[in-house]
Amino acid sequence: MSDDSKTNQQWGGRFSEPTDAFVARFTASVNFDQRLYEQDIRGSIAHATMLAQVGVLTDEEKDQIIQGLNEVREEIERGEFEWSEALEDVHMNIEARLTQKIGITGKKLHTGRSRNDQVATDIRLYLRDEIDAISTELTRLRTGLLDLAEREASTIMPGFTHLQTAQPVTFGHHMLAWQEMISRDHDRLLDCRKRVNLSPLGSAALAGTTYPIDRECTAELLGFSAPTRNSLDSVSDRDFAIEFCAFASLLLTHLSRASEELILWTSAQFNFIDLPDRFCTGSSIMPQKKNPDVPELVRGKTGRINGHLIALLTLMKSQPLAYNKDNQEDKEPLFDAVDTVKDCLRAFADMIPALETNKTAMYEAAKRGFSTATDLADYLVRKGVAFRDAHEIVGKSVAFGLEQQRDLSEMTLEELQQFSTVIESDVFDVLTLEGSVAARSHIGGTAPEQVKIAVATARQTLNP
Amino acid sequence: MSDDSKTNQQWGGRFSEPTDAFVARFTASVNFDQRLYEQDIRGSIAHATMLAQVGVLTDEEKDQIIQGLNEVREEIERGEFEWSEALEDVHMNIEARLTQKIGITGKKLHTGRSRNDQVATDIRLYLRDEIDAISTELTRLRTGLLDLAEREASTIMPGFTHLQTAQPVTFGHHMLAWQEMISRDHDRLLDCRKRVNLSPLGSAALAGTTYPIDRECTAELLGFSAPTRNSLDSVSDRDFAIEFCAFASLLLTHLSRASEELILWTSAQFNFIDLPDRFCTGSSIMPQKKNPDVPELVRGKTGRINGHLIALLTLMKSQPLAYNKDNQEDKEPLFDAVDTVKDCLRAFADMIPALETNKTAMYEAAKRGFSTATDLADYLVRKGVAFRDAHEIVGKSVAFGLEQQRDLSEMTLEELQQFSTVIESDVFDVLTLEGSVAARSHIGGTAPEQVKIAVATARQTLNP
Amino acid sequence: MSDDSKTNQQWGGRFSEPTDAFVARFTASVNFDQRLYEQDIRGSIAHATMLAQVGVLTDEEKDQIIQGLNEVREEIERGEFEWSEALEDVHMNIEARLTQKIGITGKKLHTGRSRNDQVATDIRLYLRDEIDAISTELTRLRTGLLDLAEREASTIMPGFTHLQTAQPVTFGHHMLAWQEMISRDHDRLLDCRKRVNLSPLGSAALAGTTYPIDRECTAELLGFSAPTRNSLDSVSDRDFAIEFCAFASLLLTHLSRASEELILWTSAQFNFIDLPDRFCTGSSIMPQKKNPDVPELVRGKTGRINGHLIALLTLMKSQPLAYNKDNQEDKEPLFDAVDTVKDCLRAFADMIPALETNKTAMYEAAKRGFSTATDLADYLVRKGVAFRDAHEIVGKSVAFGLEQQRDLSEMTLEELQQFSTVIESDVFDVLTLEGSVAARSHIGGTAPEQVKIAVATARQTLNP
Amino acid sequence: MSDDSKTNQQWGGRFSEPTDAFVARFTASVNFDQRLYEQDIRGSIAHATMLAQVGVLTDEEKDQIIQGLNEVREEIERGEFEWSEALEDVHMNIEARLTQKIGITGKKLHTGRSRNDQVATDIRLYLRDEIDAISTELTRLRTGLLDLAEREASTIMPGFTHLQTAQPVTFGHHMLAWQEMISRDHDRLLDCRKRVNLSPLGSAALAGTTYPIDRECTAELLGFSAPTRNSLDSVSDRDFAIEFCAFASLLLTHLSRASEELILWTSAQFNFIDLPDRFCTGSSIMPQKKNPDVPELVRGKTGRINGHLIALLTLMKSQPLAYNKDNQEDKEPLFDAVDTVKDCLRAFADMIPALETNKTAMYEAAKRGFSTATDLADYLVRKGVAFRDAHEIVGKSVAFGLEQQRDLSEMTLEELQQFSTVIESDVFDVLTLEGSVAARSHIGGTAPEQVKIAVATARQTLNP
Repeated sequence: MSDDSKTNQQWGGRFSEPTDAFVARFTASVNFDQRLYEQDIRGSIAHATMLAQVGVLTDEEKDQIIQGLNEVREEIERGEFEWSEALEDVHMNIEARLTQKIGITGKKLHTGRSRNDQVATDIRLYLRDEIDAISTELTRLRTGLLDLAEREASTIMPGFTHLQTAQPVTFGHHMLAWQEMISRDHDRLLDCRKRVNLSPLGSAALAGTTYPIDRECTAELLGFSAPTRNSLDSVSDRDFAIEFCAFASLLLTHLSRASEELILWTSAQFNFIDLPDRFCTGSSIMPQKKNPDVPELVRGKTGRINGHLIALLTLMKSQPLAYNKDNQEDKEPLFDAVDTVKDCLRAFADMIPALETNKTAMYEAAKRGFSTATDLADYLVRKGVAFRDAHEIVGKSVAFGLEQQRDLSEMTLEELQQFSTVIESDVFDVLTLEGSVAARSHIGGTAPEQVKIAVATARQTLNP
Repeated sequence: MSDDSKTNQQWGGRFSEPTDAFVARFTASVNFDQRLYEQDIRGSIAHATMLAQVGVLTDEEKDQIIQGLNEVREEIERGEFEWSEALEDVHMNIEARLTQKIGITGKKLHTGRSRNDQVATDIRLYLRDEIDAISTELTRLRTGLLDLAEREASTIMPGFTHLQTAQPVTFGHHMLAWQEMISRDHDRLLDCRKRVNLSPLGSAALAGTTYPIDRECTAELLGFSAPTRNSLDSVSDRDFAIEFCAFASLLLTHLSRASEELILWTSAQFNFIDLPDRFCTGSSIMPQKKNPDVPELVRGKTGRINGHLIALLTLMKSQPLAYNKDNQEDKEPLFDAVDTVKDCLRAFADMIPALETNKTAMYEAAKRGFSTATDLADYLVRKGVAFRDAHEIVGKSVAFGLEQQRDLSEMTLEELQQFSTVIESDVFDVLTLEGSVAARSHIGGTAPEQVKIAVATARQTLNP
Repeated sequence: MSDDSKTNQQWGGRFSEPTDAFVARFTASVNFDQRLYEQDIRGSIAHATMLAQVGVLTDEEKDQIIQGLNEVREEIERGEFEWSEALEDVHMNIEARLTQKIGITGKKLHTGRSRNDQVATDIRLYLRDEIDAISTELTRLRTGLLDLAEREASTIMPGFTHLQTAQPVTFGHHMLAWQEMISRDHDRLLDCRKRVNLSPLGSAALAGTTYPIDRECTAELLGFSAPTRNSLDSVSDRDFAIEFCAFASLLLTHLSRASEELILWTSAQFNFIDLPDRFCTGSSIMPQKKNPDVPELVRGKTGRINGHLIALLTLMKSQPLAYNKDNQEDKEPLFDAVDTVKDCLRAFADMIPALETNKTAMYEAAKRGFSTATDLADYLVRKGVAFRDAHEIVGKSVAFGLEQQRDLSEMTLEELQQFSTVIESDVFDVLTLEGSVAARSHIGGTAPEQVKIAVATARQTLNP
Repeated sequence: MSDDSKTNQQWGGRFSEPTDAFVARFTASVNFDQRLYEQDIRGSIAHATMLAQVGVLTDEEKDQIIQGLNEVREEIERGEFEWSEALEDVHMNIEARLTQKIGITGKKLHTGRSRNDQVATDIRLYLRDEIDAISTELTRLRTGLLDLAEREASTIMPGFTHLQTAQPVTFGHHMLAWQEMISRDHDRLLDCRKRVNLSPLGSAALAGTTYPIDRECTAELLGFSAPTRNSLDSVSDRDFAIEFCAFASLLLTHLSRASEELILWTSAQFNFIDLPDRFCTGSSIMPQKKNPDVPELVRGKTGRINGHLIALLTLMKSQPLAYNKDNQEDKEPLFDAVDTVKDCLRAFADMIPALETNKTAMYEAAKRGFSTATDLADYLVRKGVAFRDAHEIVGKSVAFGLEQQRDLSEMTLEELQQFSTVIESDVFDVLTLEGSVAARSHIGGTAPEQVKIAVATARQTLNP
């Protein structure tokens, strides 16, 4: 759209030639902004209601307009509406059809507003609706993660740093790490919603209007928390779209990290989990293949979202106030970001509850690599050995284990005692994987007990 | 840094050769992370205090450590500290010096923590401090904008859409548009602060620790609102840095828009404002030049910030848990984003109060271009003329004006009446620029009266 | 697509449940990759021809396949083809239809290849075709710029640095600056084409094939300059898409700069040019408006292209070899980048020849601002005055001019001589705008004479 | 820098107050552009030589200047030069020192040029030098990859798609895939060099100069292939920096992919290779750790480079001609991109020759997962079995193998014949890993023979 610009037959004597046909197609937005039809009609109904309330329209005119708009909506939803590129955008298409239906009164609807505030209102309504839908999916995914974490609170796996075995952790603890990431995204989304949920309606082209409009009234009718506070800003502001995309970039970054782990874990080399067949594809040529397509695709879609964020930031850079045609470019990135977020969340929320853990493989992997070496050092320190000496003792034990191809927990007490006489039979409580994870029992630690507490606490936050 | 990895002499028998000299330089971070020395020491003091409280250290050991750390801080601040690349990072440099000073007790400080949670703590402390400093600058800039808006509440200028004269607005109203943008940035910064202000200390390498640590205690000592909730997540999470950069990208986008307008307005073609000489540079060759260097440079710095945002998002994409060496790359973009934000805000906060408006030039520009044409149409509609007819009448009047080289307000009543007999002498109330802006008097409108109300309201939000 | 994966009924006993319906939609690509149908069929015909040549197919089988594929192409082009999401992608859709038509022989087409090399071949064919179309548009735009530069070789305008009047230049010279930018883009596009125009066909799933294929043969049949050299690389390489987007980002950056200038120049404040009405839109409310929609929209589309570049770079980051499902995400950004580039080039190539310069306004603007001050200094230096003294003399002259509201060229010889006695009547040759521009007569200088030489030289490069 | 702007004492009467102290620091560039000192001096010597040649300087003046500049260079290289922020940039610092040394003649050096063309010349000289250094490192890395590929031409490993075992490949073949990626980067770098290696000197502030300069002469003296062709474009063009960063982004993307594989392969789960100890770090706490720090850090640095690319694209978007202060922001991203590329290439070029393959682990992994299933299907097709039947036969064989925990190659002929009687004893030639890889023997295939040919061919390209 473009500030209350219309197809050229309506611009009068200022123009000496019709719009170039290619230019008309190049500048039209109806192909993608028709998606806003419902919000556009909702906004128009609120505007008409307000205009009647302040006396700019009669009640009869208002009723005619509302009935006409409701009919247009039905036509669109029945697929009978004929969208016209010559009418540029969703707003002009709907207004033209309304006027066809109810005559000149249809034109009065546009009193005291402009396409500049109209489109800003439409996008905000659209985005608020979608944020609410996304919030629901986030809750579903988080619930799935909490359920899985609870189920696998005691399942032991190797914890990695640098993709090298570091210390044993519980699978439930790992799922809670994912849940934490997503919960921050959820918080950011709700913070973003506060700034989306404001009504620009009444800002008109750029400076407000000379009609005695009531902006509080339309804000309330549309469920907005308040009107925006400056008309110049309101028609040029696209912060909310950028903030949403920043939310989406972080969410997809988190999903890409979880996807990476799912892909690793389903490889023959790790073999930690099974993805349900219905989330995978096979091969017509290689009968042995079962490919983790869903996490791979989600991982790939991170690029798309980061791209949209940059697209919008580049778009707004250095634009003078107020509305410029550039802003028409805000919609496609935003729409695609919304769709992608919803699809990826749905894929994950469906997939997580169906994950099957291969407990034996994880346990065996955790045992390899002397993952409890740190526990032995801590044990020695608690027995009064100085840290530096403890490290040396453990180093020698590990060297012996490498030679013997046995884990620390697989040695006898006598074998261990050759490295330090302070070692007693209680050492095996900390050398076992179970002992190791149980010992990390504080807020945020990997102990099964802590995992269960964390799940319970998180459930309360999620469903207060 | 790298999870509790040390220079190779300390790794024992696992390694058969020393680190390659180039690799040592390539992987060291001390050149840039020494900036965190103060936060590192503050975190260590809190950790030692807690360790004594739970009985892992004696009170004497704790006191020794704290005194040693305070001495190290002083050495650094006096510029006497010798930073060593061989010691990799700020943490090892400080710990090594502490141990030099107080002997083996220095080593005990690291009990129950790891460099992984230590660095996460340091960055969060650093960023929280900087957020508070930035918040102060935002308040100063916003106050400057409000003062200027109040001062120029009645100054008339052309409002633009598509950089074409659209309708007259007030300069104060325009300044309030900038203030609105910045106020959203301020809100986002405070939302970000909530998520920064959490304590990862106690997450240790990745899984928590077997020592009986009290994470609530260190959180409180460091002024954090709470401990983080998952150790795996805590050592790998860099969301806060990304969220800060997303805030910074939007802020700089806004400043780039304001800069673009300042540059336009100081051009000979616009000549709307004067930038104080002390914010400009001249030329040794072209004696007539006075260049708006400061807004140009701020506009350019938008690129740098968008780049840092992408750098961090790319960095985190697809990283498996928990800590990976990649994360060392989080610091430079974050530090530079913080510095850039502070500098640009300072430049703007200093410059805004010193802007001088060229009222005559703005007024003349607003008069050109028939900027009150919309007002005439609105006037006719209020007199009962149908909108479509009103538009035609105005079109003819404008055509006449173009011919006569006179604005609508410069015509006589008789001249105007030849286009419509409903026009009466009260038309000049709306045709003047003053009448036009005064008529847009509702929340967010450009009327001087509304500008003053908006300033008062905004002041209350800013200084409650 | 996914390496030779098919809808699950074809995967046999490995899978215990059908693909989830949402997953099937989520992972399907046919909605966007059907655009490649022509290239897919062309590639298949070449593959079948080669298979017959090496004896894997009989000539009869080959002829059947080619005839069948030609029929499928006609069905698609007549709009009669029924695309099926259940068949995932363009390749399976076409193969399934072929097999419906010609029976089991249709299946033999896939011998010795995989969807992994097939899709890589399709995209390269597609991109090569589009590069050639874009190259033609670039030539058209460059020709338009050269024509305009020639036409306006002597038209004087102010040259700006920092958007402040610096020195007079010719409009033709300015148009040549744009032409230079675009010519570099053109070079980069042709460099990119070299790396696009290689045949991955025969790389099969990842390792090549056991059939006695002839990769030189298919490469030649498809007009590729050679086969690619490594099968693992060939199925995972998307460099060409990224390199194309990098080209596109720079092109749009250049068009955004030209757009910015067009928008400035059509503002009431500059008023340097008129954009033909057919490239602008008006307003139904503000009858005076004529908005430069086309350059605004092009400027805005820069964001979209930068976004696609980042999307693809993020996509490929850290992907292990060889093909991963992530790569399916390569197409939409590439397709949209191609479409956007073509549209923006068309808009510019149509618009440039129709630009009308407002010579008087430009000339007057150049006279304001003492744009020939540098020329006076140069004149004095040539007369033997030391540079520092010359600068001081000019400074005083400018100060006098500011006082008197007169340009240097408007002063009398006597007036000028009061600042330096070396000034003689020949000074006016350099003080006039004409003298100033004429004096910058060397390669790349702004003198009308040089502009004409540069046009002639550029024409030779363009049409050798 | 800023177009020939100087510290304010030199701007004369136009300015009524000194530059703000903070603004002076904010706008100075000497802290980072002093890196260009050598290029700046080289450019000045060429300029002075030319000025003497065309008679603007006397030979004596020229000699004085050159000697003075050589002395300044020595001062800088001995660390004795005092850089001053008040003098803004590298150019003014050097010129001021020169003038200190040789008096007023130093000032004459700046005749016929401006800081705008001077800095453009400096950066191009700098970048050309660095491109040559990077090209040398690329050759070293590629040679290392070719050597390794040759050494391991027959080493068998599993080839992956979707990180699932697909078909056996040779490690040499895999290394050649990396070499191909890097060779494209090398080509792009050399294409970029063509566009870097042009001389903007003589473009002066924006429009050329009135002095009788010889741009061909300075171009030749500085080793540039030609002068640039338009002065306005030359002072505002930063394409070369962007094109270099686009090259760097793709290079780092490739290195990130190789790094990801190195990290996977050194994990306990894969265990395919050993990284030399000197490229890894250990842990003071976990004695079993050996972390692949170098590839992790390289992977992370991809973010930094993508960020710089976006920074520069954002910087240039929508800038009107000619020089604007924004452009000062071009240097830091470019410098850091150059440094990062050189460091990462050095790290890889050092590391690759030292990789040790764990042949047994790779071979065993390739045997698992029925990686020769495709070979069996191909074998059956060659024996006349229809593809669809062949796939079914293989499917049943794999199912049997899964039951018996044996690979296809581990079954007896009789066992295999129960699924198809066309199977004969020659089947084992294709079922073995050796047979499988050997059979893919065509250009770009994985057969050891082909790997050796590919190495030989690549060596010729590299060292013609």
